[in-house]
Amino acid sequence: MSKIGALFVGLNGGVASTSIIGAISIGKGLTPPYGLYTETLISPVINGKLARLNQQPIKEILNLINFQDVVFGGWDIEERNLYECAIESGIVPKEMVTQLEPELKSIRSFPGIFSKEFIKNLDAKDHAKGHSLYEQAQSLRQNIKDFKHTHNLQTVIVINTASTEVYHETSTTHSSLERFETGLKESDPLIGPAQIYAYAAISENCPYANFTPSLAEEIPALRELAQKTKTPIAGKDGKTGQTLLKTAIAPMFRLKNLHIEGWFSTNILGNKDGLVLDDPGSLKSKIVTKSSVLDSILGYHPYHKVNINYYPPRGDDKEAWDNIDFKGVLGMPMQIKINFLCKDSILAAGNVLDLIRLLEYTKRIGESGVQEQLGFFFKCPTTVQIGSQPIHDFFKQEGILKEWFREKVYGVKYN
Amino acid sequence: MSKIGALFVGLNGGVASTSIIGAISIGKGLTPPYGLYTETLISPVINGKLARLNQQPIKEILNLINFQDVVFGGWDIEERNLYECAIESGIVPKEMVTQLEPELKSIRSFPGIFSKEFIKNLDAKDHAKGHSLYEQAQSLRQNIKDFKHTHNLQTVIVINTASTEVYHETSTTHSSLERFETGLKESDPLIGPAQIYAYAAISENCPYANFTPSLAEEIPALRELAQKTKTPIAGKDGKTGQTLLKTAIAPMFRLKNLHIEGWFSTNILGNKDGLVLDDPGSLKSKIVTKSSVLDSILGYHPYHKVNINYYPPRGDDKEAWDNIDFKGVLGMPMQIKINFLCKDSILAAGNVLDLIRLLEYTKRIGESGVQEQLGFFFKCPTTVQIGSQPIHDFFKQEGILKEWFREKVYGVKYN
Amino acid sequence: MSKIGALFVGLNGGVASTSIIGAISIGKGLTPPYGLYTETLISPVINGKLARLNQQPIKEILNLINFQDVVFGGWDIEERNLYECAIESGIVPKEMVTQLEPELKSIRSFPGIFSKEFIKNLDAKDHAKGHSLYEQAQSLRQNIKDFKHTHNLQTVIVINTASTEVYHETSTTHSSLERFETGLKESDPLIGPAQIYAYAAISENCPYANFTPSLAEEIPALRELAQKTKTPIAGKDGKTGQTLLKTAIAPMFRLKNLHIEGWFSTNILGNKDGLVLDDPGSLKSKIVTKSSVLDSILGYHPYHKVNINYYPPRGDDKEAWDNIDFKGVLGMPMQIKINFLCKDSILAAGNVLDLIRLLEYTKRIGESGVQEQLGFFFKCPTTVQIGSQPIHDFFKQEGILKEWFREKVYGVKYN
Amino acid sequence: MSKIGALFVGLNGGVASTSIIGAISIGKGLTPPYGLYTETLISPVINGKLARLNQQPIKEILNLINFQDVVFGGWDIEERNLYECAIESGIVPKEMVTQLEPELKSIRSFPGIFSKEFIKNLDAKDHAKGHSLYEQAQSLRQNIKDFKHTHNLQTVIVINTASTEVYHETSTTHSSLERFETGLKESDPLIGPAQIYAYAAISENCPYANFTPSLAEEIPALRELAQKTKTPIAGKDGKTGQTLLKTAIAPMFRLKNLHIEGWFSTNILGNKDGLVLDDPGSLKSKIVTKSSVLDSILGYHPYHKVNINYYPPRGDDKEAWDNIDFKGVLGMPMQIKINFLCKDSILAAGNVLDLIRLLEYTKRIGESGVQEQLGFFFKCPTTVQIGSQPIHDFFKQEGILKEWFREKVYGVKYN
Repeated sequence: MSKIGALFVGLNGGVASTSIIGAISIGKGLTPPYGLYTETLISPVINGKLARLNQQPIKEILNLINFQDVVFGGWDIEERNLYECAIESGIVPKEMVTQLEPELKSIRSFPGIFSKEFIKNLDAKDHAKGHSLYEQAQSLRQNIKDFKHTHNLQTVIVINTASTEVYHETSTTHSSLERFETGLKESDPLIGPAQIYAYAAISENCPYANFTPSLAEEIPALRELAQKTKTPIAGKDGKTGQTLLKTAIAPMFRLKNLHIEGWFSTNILGNKDGLVLDDPGSLKSKIVTKSSVLDSILGYHPYHKVNINYYPPRGDDKEAWDNIDFKGVLGMPMQIKINFLCKDSILAAGNVLDLIRLLEYTKRIGESGVQEQLGFFFKCPTTVQIGSQPIHDFFKQEGILKEWFREKVYGVKYN
Repeated sequence: MSKIGALFVGLNGGVASTSIIGAISIGKGLTPPYGLYTETLISPVINGKLARLNQQPIKEILNLINFQDVVFGGWDIEERNLYECAIESGIVPKEMVTQLEPELKSIRSFPGIFSKEFIKNLDAKDHAKGHSLYEQAQSLRQNIKDFKHTHNLQTVIVINTASTEVYHETSTTHSSLERFETGLKESDPLIGPAQIYAYAAISENCPYANFTPSLAEEIPALRELAQKTKTPIAGKDGKTGQTLLKTAIAPMFRLKNLHIEGWFSTNILGNKDGLVLDDPGSLKSKIVTKSSVLDSILGYHPYHKVNINYYPPRGDDKEAWDNIDFKGVLGMPMQIKINFLCKDSILAAGNVLDLIRLLEYTKRIGESGVQEQLGFFFKCPTTVQIGSQPIHDFFKQEGILKEWFREKVYGVKYN
Repeated sequence: MSKIGALFVGLNGGVASTSIIGAISIGKGLTPPYGLYTETLISPVINGKLARLNQQPIKEILNLINFQDVVFGGWDIEERNLYECAIESGIVPKEMVTQLEPELKSIRSFPGIFSKEFIKNLDAKDHAKGHSLYEQAQSLRQNIKDFKHTHNLQTVIVINTASTEVYHETSTTHSSLERFETGLKESDPLIGPAQIYAYAAISENCPYANFTPSLAEEIPALRELAQKTKTPIAGKDGKTGQTLLKTAIAPMFRLKNLHIEGWFSTNILGNKDGLVLDDPGSLKSKIVTKSSVLDSILGYHPYHKVNINYYPPRGDDKEAWDNIDFKGVLGMPMQIKINFLCKDSILAAGNVLDLIRLLEYTKRIGESGVQEQLGFFFKCPTTVQIGSQPIHDFFKQEGILKEWFREKVYGVKYN
Repeated sequence: MSKIGALFVGLNGGVASTSIIGAISIGKGLTPPYGLYTETLISPVINGKLARLNQQPIKEILNLINFQDVVFGGWDIEERNLYECAIESGIVPKEMVTQLEPELKSIRSFPGIFSKEFIKNLDAKDHAKGHSLYEQAQSLRQNIKDFKHTHNLQTVIVINTASTEVYHETSTTHSSLERFETGLKESDPLIGPAQIYAYAAISENCPYANFTPSLAEEIPALRELAQKTKTPIAGKDGKTGQTLLKTAIAPMFRLKNLHIEGWFSTNILGNKDGLVLDDPGSLKSKIVTKSSVLDSILGYHPYHKVNINYYPPRGDDKEAWDNIDFKGVLGMPMQIKINFLCKDSILAAGNVLDLIRLLEYTKRIGESGVQEQLGFFFKCPTTVQIGSQPIHDFFKQEGILKEWFREKVYGVKYN
């Protein structure tokens, strides 16, 4: 298998840098592949039957890529090398980063595009002033071509791990590829950077994942483009800490018929993600994706409130506190409180590395368009049918994903 | 459908009284059936396919009994009426209990059997002194016959909700029905009350569930008896608060490959259950059933410690605090802490009512012996094969149960 | 000692009704006086020395009133009897309320004044439309006179336990009694209900406590009036749950020199108080009083964030979650998390009953103006000197209060 | 001021090594002196009055030693240099330890004495086999003399930070100096290592602090010796995490008359301290000191349970979880839960450094015998009068300490 590439939108951010350090460390065998779904064991099909006693890693069954075969790159609005960024963020301990100094120093970002209208709490030092959005898109496409050529890559995966943009709904501009391209040329203010990156990636037939809540791959224009270029796409908003746990616990309440009256979720985080979310517009994007998960799992509408607080003393060590009020037999009230001391970028990195592997696989086997089975990795899964209700139940999502690749590998469905 | 009966070992205890109040209240439509799995919706099979949009309650699909068709009774070592017990325990609010005063006052216990050797922290006011264990068993059988006859019942379910007995392992006495019956006649000190009740129930072809950690239906002697009398049996130790949550969350860690380093679980409870568990022998029975669940779900052996503390100020409002230490990408440590303020008997009652319904169903369709598919309701599921490792994963258990009854109803397996 | 009266602004609310039920129950000996500072033991001075082994209740040392000698009344914008309100709120269990049915039914409110501009999330059914604020004030004064006369009362205490008003700063209107009375006559929109009630109470020489964050007794106009009528006044915003605990723990950090980096406080509450605070204007009043406490205790400025969330499933059972990030030797970080499951009105009632007793005492011994020593009971103590920094340290506050009344009783200061 | 020495019993343990690293770092100005009481500001007395606006550090008011003037040493049963121990324990981050490599490598331990009977869960590689306890004591005294001479020290402080010994009560052997010395000569099995170290220290006129729960300075024999040699002594069991917080919060409950029904405390810790406490004998020593604090603060006896659990995944990052059940007005129940994620040795180090400073001061001003005013630093303060009830209230303790040194410095008492 020849090499493949992975380009991050937001290369210098915590999620991208941690994912890259994780990938290199796993590739070199310096760390066990904790946090990666693709490393878990499942039962293969042998002689038409699930062989429960002969479990194998998903990675082997699907023949997924090794991380030593991945070349990393990306865009950022700050031009700095990844080594410095990783040291400064402090997410990964200094001695682990230092071990990879040469590798990290060799990774440099292409200059990113930026719009203050879409991310209010950041200031970009460097962006494509004076150029139309269409020219910006062309420039990004050229970056991809150069990257592919330089490193002689078969496939390049593009993952958006940039800051959350201000909330926007799909509008007429986004409704068809033609209108969208006209919009690009006219620098329509409804088109944000996340959409332009996605447009460039999909135009270049790069499998694309939207790890942020920003409006991007789900708009009709980009779905159309993905079909046209036969490119797999997936999104949106990586399911990491609080929502991961929420979608894993809520199914228990449903199955036991323990009736949830209210679910209060608060988060404190102090990294750049938190700073960006301190703007109400970006916050709305996040709250919308975080809030939708409960009703569909439960089948009813409990009182559900999600708070996100910028709290600088905590840095990347995000913390969530949840309170669940529910009722059992005779309507008697009970409570569960969950305190999750998590490392946001660490959890995200696991998802990102799984997505790189699985997107490469989907392309290799010829899939294109929205990869709904990858909804397992997202807070707000993009569905094949526009407007259809995604599945949020963690265990159902996993069942669907497993069923999907058992079908691809063995030609049969099992569970 | 004619009436069925439900007899509780430990009728005056919190679990039995709450289950009965719950059943009557649900039967009369005074309360929604929260906490009951058999009331949840699932997809039926229509034209050979799962009909996802036409979900129906399990209760309807299996044509399960209504609680107004159940007559309640049981044994206890204290002779008191259920109304007083329920008022005194304070588990169910006084006004709910008072609504059912006539029904509850009409339920009286048969005199129970007791052994100080098996439950050290209780003192029985009333037990079968001077009689051999065999005579005790015959007396219990006569109680069942009388109950059945008096109320003209088709089926009687027996559920052990008595206090946890001192830990014992299976011994020669328990190894065959013949040896066990000899032991009964010789009043072998290795035979405890839980076994005698189970023996009586199974002898009378009453479906039997062991809701406690005491040694009972799993011994070879009683399995043999269950086959002989064609009686379904299930156990053991109802899965309610902390363990319920643990077996619902642990699968998420496995699927995300988040490596658990340690899991510390502590419980405080102040009811009679807590008092009994304040004796090291009874505590061991409980700790053994609570401790086994993690390894089988995860496939490895994290540091796992379970504490149970008798804490009188809390009464029946059991509380659990869990701390989970785990590692993600790059081995970075994270923590989750869970605080569960639960009502022990309320959670138990849901399981008990589900078991009454499903045991009646198993008997109706002609099943007998260990009903492994009912492992969903137990901390330490009794398996068909002695010594085989039970499944503890909450979602796998539910899958197995659902698959089982889809097969029974539709003749096909789905998921 | 003849009878005294207690009039509540917001009589039908949870704090007033719980305070009254508490007072009657304690007066009748139906409940121990938990939650009351005035019932705690302290060392009296005997022969000029603190007699540590002869501790006596503060109540006895100060000869404080018994609650059976208090007649209750108040104003409300809803005309309902207190029995119904107490049953409906559910704060006090039904059987406790029912015991006092005749007493509670006999307590009726005077019609209250209301301004939608000051409390946006409530709608009053009944208010003094068409009347100037001055006329409203006169009407309130007449209510007080009538109440005093009807019940033949020596002293009447007025306590504001109404909903939190929209945040306002002191303005010219409030700067002198003359300007304020002009404002009343001109119905100046900067004068809110809380000020009018306070004006009426102080005009009638009724000791007045502001238990809410609304702008009232601290304005220069009302201080002037209090001096003129020789009336003791105290405020503001009763220190109950989260802030009580915060001001009791923060001193430990200071004394151990454990450096606080950040303190995050979130609250969920579902009662009418929560509904009112769901309006940003009222919320600001509350946040301002809650936020000021840390800096003065610590002597530096940590990152401090306070959230208040309206969360209906919880009713009056307010819950707080705090996270404290701090550093010890070598700057090593540690965390404390506190989860307070409190009953807001229960905690408030203890403070209110203490204030009724101590305000009666201050009047009896001839004190007037701002009673700074009562700052112990408030989140944002009103100081004698306008603009001076109040003391927030719980233990310092208690020391000051104790010192004050030892001086009043024994003529000497001790500690 | 000439140099002073500090000798640790258990030099290689986490508390001693962290204290030393802390002292050197503070001495060099590499870290702020967080966690030290002696660095907090208090009001001096100026012209016979407390000067509240001119606060000064306690350190300056008492002219306490600087840590650059302290020479460190001690005993240990393992012969290793402190640098290695500190790196291995991982309590202080590697880069901080490395900064002090030369200083730490130069600190070597004297060979310690050990008794398997007193510490069951450790195995000593090196101890004084074949020698009587008296000979062991003489050898320790010689170590002190050598240390003092080598470094030309005015005063040497000895602090016991060794592992917790098995619980013993005071017996006849401990009842007088004469009997104790006879016991030493006869190697009486009731005399443990902690007592022998204390005997050696006090014999050499070294101020001594017992930072562990082991039986030592409080026995009559050693009190007698301290009087004879005019040596100040203090103990026992450093008040650090859970108990520190407990004794700071409990006073609030007393002052608000919030009645505590129960207090449940659990701890998880994975360091050597935890391993030693996994032996029931050592555990009892700890539980006894931890359990006594509540009753004396509250004046009544709530249900109080303290658990300590050895939990290896956590290392030195001790964690405590507390649940407090209490009642307010009308007996209504409320709960507070506290989760303390602490670094045990970091909190201990602050106390140890304060004690070194304050013990040097007590000796300098001529104090001797039990220094009860230092009870502020201990879980189970040793009192001047044998058997008298110590004060546990954190704020009262601090008041007493402050009063004491204001009297020493200014000749007057204030508060």
